[in-house]
Amino acid sequence: VTETTTERGESSHRLRGPVRVVGAGLLGASIGLSLREHGLEVILDDASPAALALAVDYGAGRAAADGDDPQLVVVAVPPDVTAAVVARELKAYPGAIVTDVASVKSGPLAELRALGADVSRYIGSHPMAGRERSGPIAARADLFTGRPWVIATHDGISTEDIATVSALALDLGANVVSMDPDAHDRAVAFVSHAPQLVSTLMGSRLRDAPEAALSLAGGGVRDVTRVAASDPALWVQIIGANAAHVRPVLESFRTELDVLIRALADPAAPGARKAVAETMSSGNLGVGRLPGKHGTTKRFSKVVVLIDDRPGQFAALLTFIGELGINLEDLRLEHSPGAPIGIVEVSVLPEAEERLVAALEAASWKIAAAWA
Amino acid sequence: VTETTTERGESSHRLRGPVRVVGAGLLGASIGLSLREHGLEVILDDASPAALALAVDYGAGRAAADGDDPQLVVVAVPPDVTAAVVARELKAYPGAIVTDVASVKSGPLAELRALGADVSRYIGSHPMAGRERSGPIAARADLFTGRPWVIATHDGISTEDIATVSALALDLGANVVSMDPDAHDRAVAFVSHAPQLVSTLMGSRLRDAPEAALSLAGGGVRDVTRVAASDPALWVQIIGANAAHVRPVLESFRTELDVLIRALADPAAPGARKAVAETMSSGNLGVGRLPGKHGTTKRFSKVVVLIDDRPGQFAALLTFIGELGINLEDLRLEHSPGAPIGIVEVSVLPEAEERLVAALEAASWKIAAAWA
Repeated sequence: VTETTTERGESSHRLRGPVRVVGAGLLGASIGLSLREHGLEVILDDASPAALALAVDYGAGRAAADGDDPQLVVVAVPPDVTAAVVARELKAYPGAIVTDVASVKSGPLAELRALGADVSRYIGSHPMAGRERSGPIAARADLFTGRPWVIATHDGISTEDIATVSALALDLGANVVSMDPDAHDRAVAFVSHAPQLVSTLMGSRLRDAPEAALSLAGGGVRDVTRVAASDPALWVQIIGANAAHVRPVLESFRTELDVLIRALADPAAPGARKAVAETMSSGNLGVGRLPGKHGTTKRFSKVVVLIDDRPGQFAALLTFIGELGINLEDLRLEHSPGAPIGIVEVSVLPEAEERLVAALEAASWKIAAAWA
Repeated sequence: VTETTTERGESSHRLRGPVRVVGAGLLGASIGLSLREHGLEVILDDASPAALALAVDYGAGRAAADGDDPQLVVVAVPPDVTAAVVARELKAYPGAIVTDVASVKSGPLAELRALGADVSRYIGSHPMAGRERSGPIAARADLFTGRPWVIATHDGISTEDIATVSALALDLGANVVSMDPDAHDRAVAFVSHAPQLVSTLMGSRLRDAPEAALSLAGGGVRDVTRVAASDPALWVQIIGANAAHVRPVLESFRTELDVLIRALADPAAPGARKAVAETMSSGNLGVGRLPGKHGTTKRFSKVVVLIDDRPGQFAALLTFIGELGINLEDLRLEHSPGAPIGIVEVSVLPEAEERLVAALEAASWKIAAAWA
């Protein structure tokens, strides 16, 4: 596994276009919009004439025509048809490099090889960008700004062609991370696919929860189950395509879950408390490995402020903090159930905490303890 | 199970005090601070003379003395010693009502009965309030404001004594929810204890994740694993004390996990896709049962704005929104790894979304698509 992060603008290699985008959904149309802002010619195609016409109306590019000669083809179709469409594009445009944006990378490459496609011109991509909404109407030129964009390398591709796909990602404002397809698929099994399924399974348990239990729900259960609201149709494809890597993560989850369940069968038995304590500590260690918001392991201090729940109050608080010259590293706003107040959790650099608290108190802002 | 929510001030019953608080940690000291703000006499006690002296210095109350005659005793000690301390207090103060603040409610009551204690004067409580920091130094009079406070009722207690414990919760600004101890314990197994363990087990899996995988971590895995950072010592006690209710939730989690793991063993087999789709849909349904931020199932529209990552920018955005007269229902700020920009996710009532987006665009704020 090799991994490199290239900041925007460091590459001297630029896309010249035209870029042909196949699939005019959220990702395809967003790519088109952004490339057009960079002055590139974008050619759109979609199996649905209506979706194509809509994306053209939104300014994401022009419709495909006979005689098109793209430099690069971006395949942005659902995961289960990605390989077939990439194979077709490699054949149709023998002078073009072809990439895709599917969330799994080993499967499409293996399928392409099985189909006898010329994979020396195929370089897979995976932009880690939002999908809460879908379709060209939700498309934004800024969709990829600051997000990781994995370029999946394999034997037989040229560094120049890698540079061309990197240039696409950099033009879209993304941060390039290069990995081989198997390393990518294993990585997303850990940080995306397994967490999705774990959240889904916990969400599913809430179907059995008594009504009264739901009224006690706080920030913890909400965070754990947030992504359980994701689109089943898309995730069936993603999980199916990465089953080989997701399964071992879920199996070791089950192994540790079984230890816990056994401990809970007789919580006073010798070793039961130790088993729970070791699981808790292991969770501490694992989550501690996640990098901080700036890509480091830096920790922030949290200060919780209570405000009246009406327009302007929140802005007044942030204006106050801004005037102190203190930068907010993270921020959450929550309404307290049943109370006419808002709870604002402000994260700042640890060295700024004392000054912030003193200034807030001096100006009579109501500070509360951090909440779990 | 009976459940009632009483808004602050609706009760005509008031605490008169003195209130004796046993255990000068975060919860005990916070209760003392708040009651003293209400002009009540607070008597503090703690097994540690140093902790007691610190809480007295912080203004949470005065040290216990011979001849104290409390109206109400609040036991705020670790879960595993709660019953023993409650029994001692019932005996020492035969004229007082005794409550506690432990996260489990059936176990302490059963232990008290086994000890032959006079449980007609014991009414258990569970304030659902923050615990990210601990000790009297972290204490705040506002700790309980707007949070649910469960009062665990049982046979043989008087409605007047329930009103006294309710008055405590209401004086502290909490929302009272009354349940029997078993219903409480089952409820928190679903919305607090099982989600904690599921988050912990997923966090634990990240110990095995390759370094490169962690660099791809986004909001999803962070949310799922956030509470995995919780204190092992406290949770060992909580989980052990509520094992009987937590175990069935984890067992049905495992049953559904096994179905998923089997489906992933051969994702192309007949029925495998259907199994994953049904699990995903079940997760959708379960998480959809969680009430919204205001205690309703109201959904908000999300708008994502990109801002420069420097002091004042964020406040300027919030001032702008405040001046539009649009109330923020929820808000999240995130730094994009490797990019000098902040990403602000603003939640507003659906009917305000169009006006907000139009105003932001007219004022040249950069709007991006919602992210997953």
